[in-house]
Amino acid sequence: MIVPRLIERKREGGRIEEDEWHELVRDYAAGKVPDYQMSALLMAIYFRGLDRGETNALTDAMISSGGQLELGHLTTARIDKHSTGGVGDKVSLILAPLIASLGVAVPMMSGRGLGHTGGTLDKLESIPGFRTDLTLKEAARQVERIGCALIGQTREIAPADRKLYALRDATATVEVIPLIAASIMSKKLAEGLTGLVLDVKQGSGAFIADPDRAQKLARAMIELGADRGCPVIALMTAMDRPLGFACGNALEVRESIDALRGTGPADLMEVTYALGAEMLILAGAASTSAQAWAMMQDSISSGHALEKFAQIIEAQGGDARIVERQEILPSAPKREEFTAARDGVIVEVAPRTVGHGVISLRGGRRTMEDLIDPSVGFVITAKPGDKVKRGASLATIHALDEAGIREGMNALAEAITIGDEGGEPLSLVSHRITADGVARWARPEA
Amino acid sequence: MIVPRLIERKREGGRIEEDEWHELVRDYAAGKVPDYQMSALLMAIYFRGLDRGETNALTDAMISSGGQLELGHLTTARIDKHSTGGVGDKVSLILAPLIASLGVAVPMMSGRGLGHTGGTLDKLESIPGFRTDLTLKEAARQVERIGCALIGQTREIAPADRKLYALRDATATVEVIPLIAASIMSKKLAEGLTGLVLDVKQGSGAFIADPDRAQKLARAMIELGADRGCPVIALMTAMDRPLGFACGNALEVRESIDALRGTGPADLMEVTYALGAEMLILAGAASTSAQAWAMMQDSISSGHALEKFAQIIEAQGGDARIVERQEILPSAPKREEFTAARDGVIVEVAPRTVGHGVISLRGGRRTMEDLIDPSVGFVITAKPGDKVKRGASLATIHALDEAGIREGMNALAEAITIGDEGGEPLSLVSHRITADGVARWARPEA
Repeated sequence: MIVPRLIERKREGGRIEEDEWHELVRDYAAGKVPDYQMSALLMAIYFRGLDRGETNALTDAMISSGGQLELGHLTTARIDKHSTGGVGDKVSLILAPLIASLGVAVPMMSGRGLGHTGGTLDKLESIPGFRTDLTLKEAARQVERIGCALIGQTREIAPADRKLYALRDATATVEVIPLIAASIMSKKLAEGLTGLVLDVKQGSGAFIADPDRAQKLARAMIELGADRGCPVIALMTAMDRPLGFACGNALEVRESIDALRGTGPADLMEVTYALGAEMLILAGAASTSAQAWAMMQDSISSGHALEKFAQIIEAQGGDARIVERQEILPSAPKREEFTAARDGVIVEVAPRTVGHGVISLRGGRRTMEDLIDPSVGFVITAKPGDKVKRGASLATIHALDEAGIREGMNALAEAITIGDEGGEPLSLVSHRITADGVARWARPEA
Repeated sequence: MIVPRLIERKREGGRIEEDEWHELVRDYAAGKVPDYQMSALLMAIYFRGLDRGETNALTDAMISSGGQLELGHLTTARIDKHSTGGVGDKVSLILAPLIASLGVAVPMMSGRGLGHTGGTLDKLESIPGFRTDLTLKEAARQVERIGCALIGQTREIAPADRKLYALRDATATVEVIPLIAASIMSKKLAEGLTGLVLDVKQGSGAFIADPDRAQKLARAMIELGADRGCPVIALMTAMDRPLGFACGNALEVRESIDALRGTGPADLMEVTYALGAEMLILAGAASTSAQAWAMMQDSISSGHALEKFAQIIEAQGGDARIVERQEILPSAPKREEFTAARDGVIVEVAPRTVGHGVISLRGGRRTMEDLIDPSVGFVITAKPGDKVKRGASLATIHALDEAGIREGMNALAEAITIGDEGGEPLSLVSHRITADGVARWARPEA
């Protein structure tokens, strides 16, 4: 296999055959194909795409590059949730303990920040001591014991995907539907799931802003799951503004704890419950959405969900006291309010700008090698549609130094638009997609 | 600068600003921007292109990454010639001493064989003792002293281009006109030229076979020169057959000496004079082509041009006796005639097949690490349109052993087509391109 010829063929719109995908992925994982050739190929794929057969071959090749989570002997349902990534999206941190507290196993494998979005692993690692690098064996034992493990993509699972994912992040080749579908499904299919719920973001802050393309991604993953006996259900949710208030690793852990205490922002809770209901129904633990919502609200008000979070943190070496004493979490030395420059209505809180702002505060990565500071970020309480008075506080900037405060001010000034009339934010949860098709989503009647 | 955002912007068809190019190229040369980001950007550029301003900025940034030939204090004109690469193209070896013998400084930087084509550096190094690795200071002193230096792209000149070029080769991003133009011009403009003549090859043996794209490349380079006060003139010349008879390093040096003695093949002399006339006119040393041709013919018949070649060889450590005693040059142990298999007309002498034949005789490289033998190659006297009788000699093969002779026989049998009627070879010199536009080229009236 001569890699430049393969790149050239894809560049000219040709296809890569199944055996070539296997050889390419194997050699890439083994370091025999260098990153610089793979990134050129990825960019050619951005422009030329992959067909269904190529996407399947790539997914298979990535699964084959590693091991799997051995949970087949469990009789409980094993359901995971996956989000296509957003800004302020800390739903995984809330859902995993919440659903596990209701008797459904949640073997959850998450990623790091990608592009302008944050990553669950980065958030979890802002908890002092928290280990996300469990072995597959450790993770399987923990799922058996306490019903949940929150792990990174271990070196054992789809190592080729792990390497590719990091490369895509650093080379602006994230937003390619077949690559996203193959990447997600290669990990999820290796978790030994009995079902998967997808949170497909739409809007300006989604990797795929166009709703039609976002639905295409959902269908691609649903098909990949169906081909392998793992039912997949997708909800389309809004990412035209950050989800919740907090954007930044430790700040989002704090807000997740608030949510598990029942004091989370309303938008965050709605998305969490909508996704959680699908998980509970897929697991057979609830038969209707209304029942599922009630179960989740009960678990939160009884404290079970928060207890489960503490249990998970402790099992993974973290300081579980944070669920009671949030001050143990890293906090930034500098804080400053960002206020409204005029009277009016919040027209937009642009999530990409916010996400890039977090990166410029050092809360996200520019290259694979960058170290991040977990403490920095924004708490943006302003939401599209809110009426504000000049001088009212819209957000707080958490930064390492005065330069960071200035960067944060600039980012928020760019991100937050105040006008005379409110914009039209997307529905928080708009559609539900299954193998049978697309339907409008509706909140269950109370 | 966040490189992935830069890649993303180019990917979406946006432009990269001047200061961004400078920062990017500086950081890439310093190893701060990794190859994998640069190759993704290069592939995005393959699909999206660069505008004139971007190409300018990239060229400037590459020049700034290294040193320059300090010749600004010279009052003489400084003119170089650059060819886009061909088979049997030894014009540089003839033109450099010829033009320098007429009082015009020729600071000439050349490359090695690339793909199926030969390289001036490899040819020069077949002269025993000849050094092409002069420092910029040595080269500048030599140009001052004897009007010419024939050097390679030293590590000092445009190191960023050198690094980028190797990356493009490995990532299927070579064939991008603005990148080719910027690469060539970054080196040429660092030579401190007052003018540049381009030999843009067209036909099956050219890197860019399509004449429209070849003209586009010429125009891109002319624009880059014009934007920096270095007038550039391009001639489109034929590379649908080898130029001259000899193809192979030492064999081409011999033919160059013949040419400087006035006994070179007619096609080689025509291309040499056509390009040389442009150099002399750009330098202000001649006011018409007819005058320039006469000056060059005089310099050859008087022996001045050959003396200048000897002087250059001696200055660069080579054995200058070769201009009188060609037997000092390396010669291959085995020689064999290649004869016509039938009566007919030579329809084609395919330059790519000939070039690959030289490589298979060990006269060129398959990888950058290959060592080459300077003695091997072909002397192909047959030209398209020639009438031949069965058994007539068409070429001589120069090889290391009998296996090489057989390889050479096979290559020539594939390269040379005899038919009943002659093909239609391209005009040797077809067009002249300047900042004002494209015109048909015409040989000066005697």
